[in-house]
Amino acid sequence: MSLYHRLREGAGRDWRAYVEHDFVKRLADGSLPEACFRHYLIQDYLFLIQFARAYGLAAYKASDLEDIRAASAALGAIVDTEIRLHIEFCAGWGLSEADMASAPEAAETMAYTRYVLDRGMAGDLLDLHVALAPCIVGYAEIGAGIGEVAGDHPYKAWIEMYASDDYQQVAVDEICLIDSLFERTGSEARVADLQRTFDKATRLEADFWQMGLDSRA
Amino acid sequence: MSLYHRLREGAGRDWRAYVEHDFVKRLADGSLPEACFRHYLIQDYLFLIQFARAYGLAAYKASDLEDIRAASAALGAIVDTEIRLHIEFCAGWGLSEADMASAPEAAETMAYTRYVLDRGMAGDLLDLHVALAPCIVGYAEIGAGIGEVAGDHPYKAWIEMYASDDYQQVAVDEICLIDSLFERTGSEARVADLQRTFDKATRLEADFWQMGLDSRA
Amino acid sequence: MSLYHRLREGAGRDWRAYVEHDFVKRLADGSLPEACFRHYLIQDYLFLIQFARAYGLAAYKASDLEDIRAASAALGAIVDTEIRLHIEFCAGWGLSEADMASAPEAAETMAYTRYVLDRGMAGDLLDLHVALAPCIVGYAEIGAGIGEVAGDHPYKAWIEMYASDDYQQVAVDEICLIDSLFERTGSEARVADLQRTFDKATRLEADFWQMGLDSRA
Amino acid sequence: MSLYHRLREGAGRDWRAYVEHDFVKRLADGSLPEACFRHYLIQDYLFLIQFARAYGLAAYKASDLEDIRAASAALGAIVDTEIRLHIEFCAGWGLSEADMASAPEAAETMAYTRYVLDRGMAGDLLDLHVALAPCIVGYAEIGAGIGEVAGDHPYKAWIEMYASDDYQQVAVDEICLIDSLFERTGSEARVADLQRTFDKATRLEADFWQMGLDSRA
Repeated sequence: MSLYHRLREGAGRDWRAYVEHDFVKRLADGSLPEACFRHYLIQDYLFLIQFARAYGLAAYKASDLEDIRAASAALGAIVDTEIRLHIEFCAGWGLSEADMASAPEAAETMAYTRYVLDRGMAGDLLDLHVALAPCIVGYAEIGAGIGEVAGDHPYKAWIEMYASDDYQQVAVDEICLIDSLFERTGSEARVADLQRTFDKATRLEADFWQMGLDSRA
Repeated sequence: MSLYHRLREGAGRDWRAYVEHDFVKRLADGSLPEACFRHYLIQDYLFLIQFARAYGLAAYKASDLEDIRAASAALGAIVDTEIRLHIEFCAGWGLSEADMASAPEAAETMAYTRYVLDRGMAGDLLDLHVALAPCIVGYAEIGAGIGEVAGDHPYKAWIEMYASDDYQQVAVDEICLIDSLFERTGSEARVADLQRTFDKATRLEADFWQMGLDSRA
Repeated sequence: MSLYHRLREGAGRDWRAYVEHDFVKRLADGSLPEACFRHYLIQDYLFLIQFARAYGLAAYKASDLEDIRAASAALGAIVDTEIRLHIEFCAGWGLSEADMASAPEAAETMAYTRYVLDRGMAGDLLDLHVALAPCIVGYAEIGAGIGEVAGDHPYKAWIEMYASDDYQQVAVDEICLIDSLFERTGSEARVADLQRTFDKATRLEADFWQMGLDSRA
Repeated sequence: MSLYHRLREGAGRDWRAYVEHDFVKRLADGSLPEACFRHYLIQDYLFLIQFARAYGLAAYKASDLEDIRAASAALGAIVDTEIRLHIEFCAGWGLSEADMASAPEAAETMAYTRYVLDRGMAGDLLDLHVALAPCIVGYAEIGAGIGEVAGDHPYKAWIEMYASDDYQQVAVDEICLIDSLFERTGSEARVADLQRTFDKATRLEADFWQMGLDSRA
């Protein structure tokens, strides 16, 4: 079994609390209050900036050209494509980039992103990618899961993005990268520690959904 | 006016929300549920471990021997004195070190500590100390503020620790260090960014109190 | 005067020892032994890999999207364009990428690149760019200086690359970036320390030329 | 066989070129010019400052209290004991701390120290300690090797310091630490990469001796 799948299994209840979070269910059935979704979109914009920094870190951490190129491609994809698409998408929800850039960063956004950055800096490239995985691969699982059942409602476009073949491939690539890093630098002795990292990151992702839900006021 | 005092003024409402937090008020009057305090003590143990790492980072970041020695002394004080005192203190509340070490790290603990570590790594020594200041100096202000009014109740010993001359001196030294770093590496142009760091750290400290209060269940 | 020009002036004799190094003079008049040039090309390949890591670091260090984008673009240019052009150029000199990738990294290559990476990690983005400047901007000065006098000899193509308008623009952009970082985060109090960084980096670049010259055996 | 001993074996000729360097032989028989030794002492002072930073980094990199405490103790030993002893020792050779602190850092000093710091930052705690080992453990091997044969000459005190039981124990502890880190986070798949790190560090240590020897002019 691939390391990713072992970690996902190992995360057990924490994993389910994340991928089956109420925020996700209400996205799927369209019952999520729009204010919650807008708050989520703003924080996701701020999240993406830190996420980009994590790929800068991955390029720094790499020891051969192939790994640097992979990190550079991912970083370029985030700042040149993903963030731009996110900004366009948010404009459709009445959110300007200037508004999002000046919004206060929520504690939940800081918690997950800074945890990933610090874990990645203190550990090695494998620790960094294990901390990123619940986000990258989890969104693909969520998208695929609710993509089929989602009706015709305001969140359909967002769901389709993560259910798309393109995004599913991003997740498959991330799983392969983690397995390759594990083969090169991992060991059974590290699995317990990697599981702790994966579990923490998973709980912080669930908190991120909860932040969205709590913002309805 | 010293940089620290400018930043504290600048933090305005965020600062008051932190130093006058309900957790603090209920510590002062002894009405804080003991379960909240115990939860706080456990998370503070986990916090101190990350706090120690921040002083390791300060030693790494230093460019002359004097700064390395200051960071080394602070790191030694944390791991050899502060953490030991904390463990003894917690034993008095029925908490063993093994229990605390195996407790899950709360999101609020991760948010503040990893924010400090990442800000310090990405920025310079001044950024690191500005991120640490709301904790180090804020606790002295809180201790001094409630030290005089606190009655004879279970939290008196904890309050007296932070109201003590020893701890007040720690805070004075931190203010001096920040001012010295600002003189050496700061500038007016950096103040807005330093304020953002100070404000974020202050809000994350207030969240840490809130975590304590929310744990009463 | 721009910070870059102050630092270049301040580096005085060290700067001249770098830009007027015998390796440079013998490149210009075509008298450099080909073995020296080949050794230089191999080490420059290994240098570029670490140089790419420095731009990963710059992306990590950035605190806003604009700075992340600039670092991402520079990183992408290095791994997708510069390194590929360098590999093509080296193929013309009979050097395969596999040979270069497996060559031992010279002490001089390690000294400069790791100094830059460590200075950049310990300091802030300004420290990083000041450490990179002798390389980026110095090569433009060298290229422009010898571009006019270089005769028709084996090193002409290499010289023309750095004398080209494209590369001269890269250097102008780097000077602007350094000035902008200085305005945002610098101060007169930092200049002495920035000069020390610039001087060290300049001496390490001169050592890099010397390594090429010494390899003739 | 312990990882350290495998790496030492693997370093083969590079290792012998380091521990049997002419600088070492001439230290042993007392024929080393005093100017070389003084130059070495000055650079070793500058080296120790960076070495201290490496232990700050180790504290940052640690993920549990035990590892942080070990790094803190080592850092404290360097800045409170080793550097002070070195300063006293150098005073006996007519070198004041102020002179040493203002001496230019040699390229060889920068090369080894910054390589260690960057390898340690980019990799994990095991990578950091493998990069430090040729220094820490190599000096013990050198001290033990020449401690018995060294006659009564100016370098005897220096040699006895590294031949002493105290220093031999420091080396034994480092070997144990590396073995423990390898057990916890290593794997056979990592050995080739760890060997590359060890080899590079070994060559950079040999260069450090050569720098001493070359300074006789």
